Amino acid sequence: MSEQNSRRGGSREFPLAERLGRLGTETAFAVSGEAAAFAAEGNKVYPFHLGDMNLKTPQNIIDAAFKAANEGKTGYCPNAGIPQLRELLAEDVNGPRGTHYTIDNVAIQPGGKPSIGKFVLSLMNPGEEVLYPNPGYPIYESQIEFHGGRAIPYRLLPGESNFKLDVDGIADAITPQTRMIVYNNLHNPTGAESSDEEMQTIAELAVKHDLIVLSDEAYFDIRYAGASRSIASLPGMEERTVILYTFSKKFAMTGWRLGASIGPKPVIDAVAKLNVNEESCSNHFIQYGAIEALTGDQSGARHIVDTLKTRRDVAVDLLNAIPGIDCYRPEATFYLFPDVTELMARRGMDDYDQFRREAMHATGVSFCTRLHFGRPLPDEDRRYIRLAYSGIDADQIEEGLGLLKKWAAS
Amino acid sequence: MSEQNSRRGGSREFPLAERLGRLGTETAFAVSGEAAAFAAEGNKVYPFHLGDMNLKTPQNIIDAAFKAANEGKTGYCPNAGIPQLRELLAEDVNGPRGTHYTIDNVAIQPGGKPSIGKFVLSLMNPGEEVLYPNPGYPIYESQIEFHGGRAIPYRLLPGESNFKLDVDGIADAITPQTRMIVYNNLHNPTGAESSDEEMQTIAELAVKHDLIVLSDEAYFDIRYAGASRSIASLPGMEERTVILYTFSKKFAMTGWRLGASIGPKPVIDAVAKLNVNEESCSNHFIQYGAIEALTGDQSGARHIVDTLKTRRDVAVDLLNAIPGIDCYRPEATFYLFPDVTELMARRGMDDYDQFRREAMHATGVSFCTRLHFGRPLPDEDRRYIRLAYSGIDADQIEEGLGLLKKWAAS
Repeated sequence: MSEQNSRRGGSREFPLAERLGRLGTETAFAVSGEAAAFAAEGNKVYPFHLGDMNLKTPQNIIDAAFKAANEGKTGYCPNAGIPQLRELLAEDVNGPRGTHYTIDNVAIQPGGKPSIGKFVLSLMNPGEEVLYPNPGYPIYESQIEFHGGRAIPYRLLPGESNFKLDVDGIADAITPQTRMIVYNNLHNPTGAESSDEEMQTIAELAVKHDLIVLSDEAYFDIRYAGASRSIASLPGMEERTVILYTFSKKFAMTGWRLGASIGPKPVIDAVAKLNVNEESCSNHFIQYGAIEALTGDQSGARHIVDTLKTRRDVAVDLLNAIPGIDCYRPEATFYLFPDVTELMARRGMDDYDQFRREAMHATGVSFCTRLHFGRPLPDEDRRYIRLAYSGIDADQIEEGLGLLKKWAAS
Repeated sequence: MSEQNSRRGGSREFPLAERLGRLGTETAFAVSGEAAAFAAEGNKVYPFHLGDMNLKTPQNIIDAAFKAANEGKTGYCPNAGIPQLRELLAEDVNGPRGTHYTIDNVAIQPGGKPSIGKFVLSLMNPGEEVLYPNPGYPIYESQIEFHGGRAIPYRLLPGESNFKLDVDGIADAITPQTRMIVYNNLHNPTGAESSDEEMQTIAELAVKHDLIVLSDEAYFDIRYAGASRSIASLPGMEERTVILYTFSKKFAMTGWRLGASIGPKPVIDAVAKLNVNEESCSNHFIQYGAIEALTGDQSGARHIVDTLKTRRDVAVDLLNAIPGIDCYRPEATFYLFPDVTELMARRGMDDYDQFRREAMHATGVSFCTRLHFGRPLPDEDRRYIRLAYSGIDADQIEEGLGLLKKWAAS
């Protein structure tokens, strides 16, 4: 084989940059791949593995974006987004939070996720430590380490109504090298929400140790009772918090890729300069869809939350009816993180992947496990799986979890 | 002022990451800002400063995108893009290049620009050297240095029909630390195109020294005579070239933010993993617009090139009629890079910004200068400005450059 042909198509090792050895990924996509392969063999799959939504974006939002495209909003827009959307978003975020953001505090992003990497690039120096929730969204760990930082996990502990953060562990983990805390209230994968006291403690630690907080508020508006609160609202915090905002969940716009970084102007200026370098700007005309989302008819967003609430109740009730499974009923997010320790023990299994695959092959129910949400920590003695109910209808939840129950009892 | 208020709004220095000191930007946006401010004072501006387009995306492309949105393509799509678009794009790129790309060689991106940063992150280790054209698109220099590399410029020299690359300078600049060459044939800002011999020489240097090439082919399809060629077509090059592809120019889709990285599978796999980390995926439904762009009625794309050709001829003729200005007539891109050395000398000016501002305030003609395309090199004795004719109609080009001619003669 010639030199030319040997490299083409990747048949020879390609000399990639060393930093890629520190780049993580969302291993949940591998579960998607396995589920798709299983479905392709003619099997029925009940998809609980991904946080995508099988609900369509409300029509008024689609129509507004299309109208803007037809009116010629097909050229570049400013790097930080169109001014009208930045202003509206600042107001929208201020409303329930009591914050004081203006247009200068908002940089539109192509999704919620870009705020993670840009936060890290803007604020963390190599060698510095960043505290992050584990289990948690795996991109925190990945981006911190990829850009040369030390990702320091903090735990979530079982609590009365849902998990709580291990605030003592957070306090103990802070060192002179600690620079930032990633705080994902309304938490993926557990659906956990801080008590007032817990949020206050995190804020006090941040102020005391001069830490900057990435407040991942992706699920702020996906809630079924009560009201969401932001750590940016607490004394001393607006100046040291960057909010990850996304249109993805509230308006079922996951595939649009539209969100924002919201925070102190110097950080947002840096983030906007990263926008110039990385993608110039977010898609221009879809930002008019986002304006309609914020200011237009809200019945679409209400329908989304109502639908998700029904699904949650169906799923939690059925999971708790399965012997060996114990599941909280979160008031927010569209995730469930049931404890399956007993069920796995009863089936004589200790291996997460084996359990997950056997369950899927026996029942078609496809879910993620704790392994997909950060490197497991030492001394974890309970076993958890994660089910997302954003991409599966209530009748399918019922059917799938019914099969899972039969399998669990078999 | 309290601690809390002093930081809010950026009134106190915020402790940003040190790497931001190495982050460049597109200073052309500052020219946009100055032009906008001048227009806001009631002045007429002739916008030659930005490579945006005042031509609307062809309607069939817009319609296809929104058909997809209405059909529910509003959720996530695969990280590397929808398979149908990746396959079509591989075929489309192979056609004129004679390359052998398949779906595995294509990772869809939110624009052409993301390919630059992801190329650097995937292939360059800190301390390694990357050759790049200067003058050239300023993001090359910025991304190489931001991620810890050494950006080593190579020159463009005046030639017979347009600028040519300083291939002797490139050969001399290669060291054991040289890792990559950025090659932007159909070049911004000069509109220059390599001769067969010049392209062959670059390819031979890359093979000889085992260098990887970023071939920025953003303007491959914006040409008025002849046929574009890609360095990926040359022997030994497909295996060591990453093509920056964009839908922005050919289909007037700058604001859509849609492009692709196309290259050896190991690099594309790494780029797709960066997609997972940075933005999950590009907007889902606009990728159906791109399928229509590649496979549907091409009259829109032809109209765009025809319109640009007319503008080019009007602009080049008028520029060359101005005493002290000398301008090539490029057969590709929508940029002109006239030599204004004599005009500046006649007006007693050596300062680029002074010349640019005086011209705009006297005539409304707003353009960039050599300063906006990389740090000037030692011993530059000629002076150049850059005019983009993608965002201004032919009659306005005529009017504006007529005023510039009067001012030049005044």
